[in-house]
Amino acid sequence: MRAYDVIKHKRDGGELSKEQIRFFVDGLVKGSIPDYQVSALLMAIYFRGMTDSETAELTFAIRDSGDKLDIKVDGLKADKHSTGGVGDKTSLVVMPIVASCGIKVAKMSGRGLGHTGGTVDKLESIQGFDCALSADEFSKTVSEIGLSITGQSGNLAPADKILYALRDVTATVDSIPLIASSIMGKKLAVGDDVIVLDVKCGSGAFMKSYGDSERLASACVNIGKAAGKRISALITDMDVPLGNAIGNSLEVIEAIEALKGSGPSDLVELSVALAAEILHLSGQGSLIECEQRAREQIQSGKALDVFAQMVESQGGNKEWVFDTAFFPKAKHIVSVIADKSGYIERVNAENYGIAASLLGAGRSKADESIDHTAGIIIRKKVGDFVNKGDEIASLQFNNGNVDQAIKLISESTILSHVPPKKRPLLLGRIGFAPKEKQ
Amino acid sequence: MRAYDVIKHKRDGGELSKEQIRFFVDGLVKGSIPDYQVSALLMAIYFRGMTDSETAELTFAIRDSGDKLDIKVDGLKADKHSTGGVGDKTSLVVMPIVASCGIKVAKMSGRGLGHTGGTVDKLESIQGFDCALSADEFSKTVSEIGLSITGQSGNLAPADKILYALRDVTATVDSIPLIASSIMGKKLAVGDDVIVLDVKCGSGAFMKSYGDSERLASACVNIGKAAGKRISALITDMDVPLGNAIGNSLEVIEAIEALKGSGPSDLVELSVALAAEILHLSGQGSLIECEQRAREQIQSGKALDVFAQMVESQGGNKEWVFDTAFFPKAKHIVSVIADKSGYIERVNAENYGIAASLLGAGRSKADESIDHTAGIIIRKKVGDFVNKGDEIASLQFNNGNVDQAIKLISESTILSHVPPKKRPLLLGRIGFAPKEKQ
Repeated sequence: MRAYDVIKHKRDGGELSKEQIRFFVDGLVKGSIPDYQVSALLMAIYFRGMTDSETAELTFAIRDSGDKLDIKVDGLKADKHSTGGVGDKTSLVVMPIVASCGIKVAKMSGRGLGHTGGTVDKLESIQGFDCALSADEFSKTVSEIGLSITGQSGNLAPADKILYALRDVTATVDSIPLIASSIMGKKLAVGDDVIVLDVKCGSGAFMKSYGDSERLASACVNIGKAAGKRISALITDMDVPLGNAIGNSLEVIEAIEALKGSGPSDLVELSVALAAEILHLSGQGSLIECEQRAREQIQSGKALDVFAQMVESQGGNKEWVFDTAFFPKAKHIVSVIADKSGYIERVNAENYGIAASLLGAGRSKADESIDHTAGIIIRKKVGDFVNKGDEIASLQFNNGNVDQAIKLISESTILSHVPPKKRPLLLGRIGFAPKEKQ
Repeated sequence: MRAYDVIKHKRDGGELSKEQIRFFVDGLVKGSIPDYQVSALLMAIYFRGMTDSETAELTFAIRDSGDKLDIKVDGLKADKHSTGGVGDKTSLVVMPIVASCGIKVAKMSGRGLGHTGGTVDKLESIQGFDCALSADEFSKTVSEIGLSITGQSGNLAPADKILYALRDVTATVDSIPLIASSIMGKKLAVGDDVIVLDVKCGSGAFMKSYGDSERLASACVNIGKAAGKRISALITDMDVPLGNAIGNSLEVIEAIEALKGSGPSDLVELSVALAAEILHLSGQGSLIECEQRAREQIQSGKALDVFAQMVESQGGNKEWVFDTAFFPKAKHIVSVIADKSGYIERVNAENYGIAASLLGAGRSKADESIDHTAGIIIRKKVGDFVNKGDEIASLQFNNGNVDQAIKLISESTILSHVPPKKRPLLLGRIGFAPKEKQ
């Protein structure tokens, strides 16, 4: 088999065979297929697309390109994956809820980059919290507590790293089969039984349109189906930041509030919906029953308890969970003030994320450090009426570029004389669960 | 400027600016733009195409990427370029004709590869003929004789070498703007005033369909126009080999016969047509007048004289020109015999070229040596009636794979009960000559 023929076959609109896809992925990991042939194939895939079967085979080849994490547990293991948004701290709420219902969660998370944050950065806001667990420590925490969240370790899905690095510099990122196989290749290498995806849609998301979000969700669910997983995807609004807090410690505090039953309603509703998906796919009842169950785990304090146990088990100070006043605060607080009156018609969520990053909460390159205390507390959201002089947002920072952040927030917050039409948080659902397993 | 943005712009169907194209070509020659970004752009160009203006700018950037050959002469300099065919020895006939009419010819030619031959290999069949002239020797021969043909030297159009090498392994060869800019980038670096292209079409050509041939011819002529050249293109049949001889010394002998007025009619007609194009574009009269002039140069022996003078000037034995019996012969001759009777309906010209190569006349890799005496003399052509047992072709070789060659020729020669429709040799013409220069 020759790489040339694989490229030509895809260029001419043909369907790649399992053997051709394996040959290419093996070759790029071994280095026997040079970058310039890989990037030519990626561009051909960009133009020609991939069938469901090709996308699944590409995903399986990525999954099999390196180590696999296969923590043995009694019962089902679940994971939830978000395509990335601004203020999205749902993992910190959802995973404790499902763990408190007996579903095991061994979650590998990433760090933030660009305008979106990462769960690892957020958890490291908690004094002592260790996100660099050894495989044994990770496995032990999952067995004992039912929940552990750590950073990515080992040589998981190395083909994805190579493909992503090339896509990033050859304008081939925006391809649904390539995005789906990248997400799912890593997920499948972790070996969960139940996977729920939160595909974000809107100004703060990677997918700006509903159509693209739906196509990505379908592609991912089809891959999970082909892999024999219980899987569903929610398509959710990311035209506005989720919750009121953006920034690492601010988001952890808000997540803890949600676990205590006093979180902002959008964060709580989305977390309950995602947790209910996992519980439903795990066979714990109908979606409505599972939503009720999720709310009960918050009300009873059981979800918060599991979260606190995980924090303690991973070296964190669990007192901070029970009293968030322990979290250190940024030195400076500056308000963004409305310069006129009106209803907030819309905001640009991505710009809110960039503003938080400018304040020190994010990084533009993978090796930059971040300020865990920096970020934004949103005081007025889409649909709220503001009077001239009202505080729209509170910016918290130590050494950030506050002028630029204020400008971005002000310009991204569009006022109107009439209240905007209410936009639902849950935009769509694509679900699948193997019948024989339920 | 970033290579990423150039790739993305083309990927999204945009027209690249002159600056973007220069940036990319400069970057790939300097090595500041890596191969994987170049191949991604090439694949995007494959899918999106290029406008005439983009194709011209790409060609000019290729032309300007290295040295230029600019031999000073009195009057006009002309060149003829063929896209490559089987048995195509027209350069050896056309260039002496036009040189004998006072048009200067400083021609850089290549070697054969695959199923097509190269003019340099052919000329080296003549004892002593030197195709590795220094710039001074080349220039001197052009000044004194009016005609010189040498191999490519210097660092002409290095961007084309890099682009072609990448296209060859990334399935991006078959793109009209990329082919046209490759052909014309090299031609323009040579600095001729008059350029006539012979775009081959059919089973023995790179372009199999008339539509593709016409698109390529148009693209090349448009580039020449943008560069201020006098240029035209003939689209000519390559469904059958040209003339009767395939193989280096066999083709030189046939070309000499054509210069003596006794060549096969297809070779003579095409050579006269191409020479007339050059003379016409050079202002020597109407096409019909120039055809007449070309025939006269053959009949008078003037074209043959110029050819013999060039051979002598470049170290070759000109006695061989006047008496082709001097050319050494291959040791073995084997006939391909018709196994039934009928009209030859069609042949596969590419397979005839491959068969000649199998006999030792060609090479599949650039550094292989060739046997100048090996090749094929075609005895029966398309339209001829053959009786069972007649000789279709004579294979001449020393150490070739004769069984495979016989099989290829036999299988590629299709007989029929009825005579085939006669197919014209000249299929189309696309011409342009700047008015003010004529």
